[in-house]
This record gives sequence, C-alpha cells and structure tokens, in this order.
Amino acid sequence: MTDLPNAVTIQEVGPRDGLQSEARVLTTDQKVALINALVAAGLREIEVGSFVNPKAVPQMAGTAEVVARLPDVPGVNYRALWLNPKGLEQAIATGRVAMDGKLTLTASDTFSKRNTNRSIEETIGQMPVWIGLYRAAGVTPHALGLMAAFGCNFEGEVPPEKVLGLIARVKSVMNDNGSDLAHVRLADTMGWANPAQVTRLVDMVWSRWPEMGIRLHLHDTRGLAVANAFAAMQRGVREFDAAVGGLGGCPFAALKGAAGNVATEDLAFMCEEMGIETGVNLERLVEAASLAEELVGRPLVGKVMKAGALARYRKH
Amino acid sequence: MTDLPNAVTIQEVGPRDGLQSEARVLTTDQKVALINALVAAGLREIEVGSFVNPKAVPQMAGTAEVVARLPDVPGVNYRALWLNPKGLEQAIATGRVAMDGKLTLTASDTFSKRNTNRSIEETIGQMPVWIGLYRAAGVTPHALGLMAAFGCNFEGEVPPEKVLGLIARVKSVMNDNGSDLAHVRLADTMGWANPAQVTRLVDMVWSRWPEMGIRLHLHDTRGLAVANAFAAMQRGVREFDAAVGGLGGCPFAALKGAAGNVATEDLAFMCEEMGIETGVNLERLVEAASLAEELVGRPLVGKVMKAGALARYRKH
Repeated sequence: MTDLPNAVTIQEVGPRDGLQSEARVLTTDQKVALINALVAAGLREIEVGSFVNPKAVPQMAGTAEVVARLPDVPGVNYRALWLNPKGLEQAIATGRVAMDGKLTLTASDTFSKRNTNRSIEETIGQMPVWIGLYRAAGVTPHALGLMAAFGCNFEGEVPPEKVLGLIARVKSVMNDNGSDLAHVRLADTMGWANPAQVTRLVDMVWSRWPEMGIRLHLHDTRGLAVANAFAAMQRGVREFDAAVGGLGGCPFAALKGAAGNVATEDLAFMCEEMGIETGVNLERLVEAASLAEELVGRPLVGKVMKAGALARYRKH
Repeated sequence: MTDLPNAVTIQEVGPRDGLQSEARVLTTDQKVALINALVAAGLREIEVGSFVNPKAVPQMAGTAEVVARLPDVPGVNYRALWLNPKGLEQAIATGRVAMDGKLTLTASDTFSKRNTNRSIEETIGQMPVWIGLYRAAGVTPHALGLMAAFGCNFEGEVPPEKVLGLIARVKSVMNDNGSDLAHVRLADTMGWANPAQVTRLVDMVWSRWPEMGIRLHLHDTRGLAVANAFAAMQRGVREFDAAVGGLGGCPFAALKGAAGNVATEDLAFMCEEMGIETGVNLERLVEAASLAEELVGRPLVGKVMKAGALARYRKH
C-alpha cells in the first residue's frame, strides 16, 4: 500500500463525455453554470465540450459560446474535443482552449470504423496530417488518446500486446514527424476493464516505456471503475478522467440505465480517505453533482453525492 | 496480482440485510420467489430473513413461513438473524436454518446502544449466556460478527487496534466457555471503509491470528465497496457478503438514495473477469436482480444488472 501516490490529478470530463450522452440538451447558460461549479470545487483540468457537427451531436452545440463565457482562473485549463480540421480551427479561434495536440486512436478496428468512419490503419495514416496541423498552430503533439483499450463490444477483449503495438506505432509516426510520444490516455470506453487487467496493462506499458505518462479514462458500466482506479494507483498511476455525478452512460440507448464515467466525487472521496491529495473540495463537488443531476433531469448514479462525505462525522 | 485467491464464497444477504431496509414489505410468496431465483443462480449461502419482532421490523415478518417453503437443495445453507433467545428458539424450531452460533458485537459503543440497546461491555457480558444457549442447541459458537468495524457515523473512524482488542476479548470469553474464536465477519455497516484501511485491518488481524477466517460485509454507501473487496482479495480474503442488485441502503431514510450492500452480481462479475471462481451463474443472477428490482418497486443500483455481463460479447 505504500506504493499509492501522494497526489492524483482528476480531469473532469462531465461537460463533454458526460453531457454528450444525456437525453436532455443543456442550454449554454446551464453548461456555464455547471462548469463554474466544477471550477469552484477545485477541478483544474476540465473538458468543456466538443467542436463537432451540432446536427450529429446536438448536446455539444454552442461549445464556442460556452468557452467564451468561462471564467479566467489561474491554473485552470479548459479542454475540448474535435474530430476534424474544422473543429480544431474553431477550438483555436476561441483562444481559450488548452492545446495538447493529442492524437486519438481506437484499439478495435470495428469500433473505429463505426465511431469515426476510419479503420485503425487509416487513422494512423492520417496522423502526419494532424501533426502538421498542430505544428502550424504552434503545438507539437506528444500525447495519444487510445479508446477501447481494454475491450470492445464488437471485438471482445483487447489484448495488452495489441495496445503496446499500437502505442509503438504512434510513437514511431511521431518520431518520423519531429515529435515523440510522452503520454497515453487509456480509455475503457465500453466498460470492459477489471483490476487485474488494468494492473497488467499499466505494468506492461511502464516496463517498455518507463517514462511514459499514463492517464486512465474509466467507465463504470459494470461497476468496476473505482476498483480499477485503485488498482492503477497501486501501480503508480496519478492521472484519471472522471465525470461529476457519474454523468453519461446510456440513459436512453441500448443499455438503458448503464452507468457512465466513474463519478468524480466518488473517485476524489476514495483518494481523500486514503490520504491522496486531489485539490478537490468534496463538499463543493457534491454541490456540483447535485446541480448536474438537476440540469439533466434524471437521478445520477454517484454515491457520495447521495450519502455525503465523511468529514462531517469525524471527531476533531 | 498473483496473490488473488482462486475462488471466493459470496454469502447472499439481500433477502435479510437488503429487504429489511426497503420501504415496500414483500409477501412471503415474493420472498420465496426471490430466494428461489438466488438458489437457481448458484448461491449456496443465503441469509433469508430475521426472527425479530415484526412490529419493529415489518419487512422481516413471516420468516418462519418463508423458511418452511424454501427448497431443499444439497449444499445450500439458509441462514438467518435473531437478537434474543426467543428469536433463536424460533429459528431452531424451523429445523432448516443453518446454525453457526455466531456472536455479534458492535465496534462503536454509541451505535451499539442505539441499535441493540446495550453497550459494548454489556454485549460482551451477555456472551456466556449466548454460548450456553447455543451449546444447549448442540452448536458450539466459534464465529463473531463485528458491526461498524471500520467507522461509525456517531463515533467516527474505528481504529484497527480497537477492532483487534475486541476480537481478543471475544476470543477470551469463548475460551473461558469451552470454545474458541475461528472466524470473524467484519462489517462496514455505515460505508466508512476504504481500500487502504481494509488492507491494513486484514493484515493486522492475520498478523496476530494467522488461522482466523475473515469475511467482509461491505456497504457501498460511498461507492468504494467493490474496490474494498478487491483490496481484501489481494490480501487473501475469500469470503464476502453481498446483496443482489445492491438491495438495501437508505431508500427512505436520512440518506435518501444512499446505496446498500455491495451488489452480488457486480462482485461476482469482477471475480469472473479476474478468473476467480464464485460458483455463480451471472446470467441467472442478473435475472434474480431484475426480479428483486420489480419486487421492491424502485430502481436498484447494481451496474451489471443494467449493462449485462461480458460473456455475450466475447468471440469464441
């Protein structure tokens, strides 16, 4: 247990990965209010929206306006998602979206084609173009977001060897284009990961690339997200994505009622209880979760937002 | 990770610890149907009810009738709870309740008084009487159930040293009365445990009594129950309580919406994914969870019951 980190960074993805799956489309005012509440809770990395086609994803319409209205807070980075050069252009035009030039890839070919209309090979083939676009904007890409890194409803288990192979490919493309891969975000997009698998994959990545930054993006589809995060922390992982209240999931699709991202406040609570710093104020985070619940108009699945944290019960 | 056990035993407590907290009181027919579904799912240790005052706990009325109507299945043990000699008598009279002569104690004095009307000292003082009652019934007590073993809303954190002290006291009382303590059930009654704390307590118990059996009774009040179970498995714990669908919690009390016991199907799913045998059929367990949800008339919090397990997606 002495291997647990002293501090972890939680990137809040509720306003993007969470809200994009919700049935109710929030207004710009509502999104700004939610993000303000998240900033007030001490979150410093926040995905605030997507620059994508509003006809395809109406939940993400108006992201530029949202970004324009966010407060300037020292140390707070607003991040966003885009899928094509036009989206990148719009994000740059705001002047307020933090750019890390992250490239993205999916570890399952079938899911890649369904979700992005491109195979794995086609996506890797496009990477030099993206690297060029980012460099033109003054950013040298050094990060990879790998979706479905643990398993896929279309292809089943994703073996860790495959993940390592893909990371190596992207690293090589970056090297060929004047950059290097320094950070990977491993996403359990469809809720396949278990703690033993997380441990194995993290160990394998660090065994091959000891300096690689690793962030985990965990979905709680089958209830294991917090356990997966704990297993990762035991191996030294210090960066996690999470969504306030556990926003997202499949409230209105095939897996009706399936959970979304790991709930930010539950993850932060576990850290706080184990003496791991997150910089988050749990009471305020619970307030943000309650606001999110009110805004999306359905009960969210976060636990600490219902039961409250423990500070109030402790004798001092 | 090589320390994970090959198999774990899950004791289902939904029909007792779960249903006793539900607003809706089930009929005997409904309880029997639920327990039958749990047996069909492969569960072999099931807490089926309590022999307590039906005026105080109407949800548990008719337990004797429930027990009388349960199927005789080789290897299946039906267990129950009682708080006084009359309850024990009623349980024995059924001839079908498995007897382990477990003594119970609460690690928080305030909670002990509120919940059982007796202090810790008074409860320990009564233990020779209970041992006598069990021995008269042909059972030699060798087990202790310790409630609030991690923390208490009235007294805060429960230090592991206190837990060890209480275990030592009970062991000594048993020794003075011709028995010995061989098994402890550590209950996180109010959802205080975190994985680091679970690890520490389990290690301390086994460091002092290497042969002691340990079962964990985990509540998911603050979302950490599955992570706590994983942490315990890493230290070699192989026995857990769980409630189908995550029944229980505080659906209608102070912490409205707070989660109950760790969901049996989520715990079993994690085990199955990590190659740990439980003897449970997940598909049937999900059916039992859906039945439980229908019977109690509110959405349960289990995750796998909503998303389904992964077997269906795997290529063979």
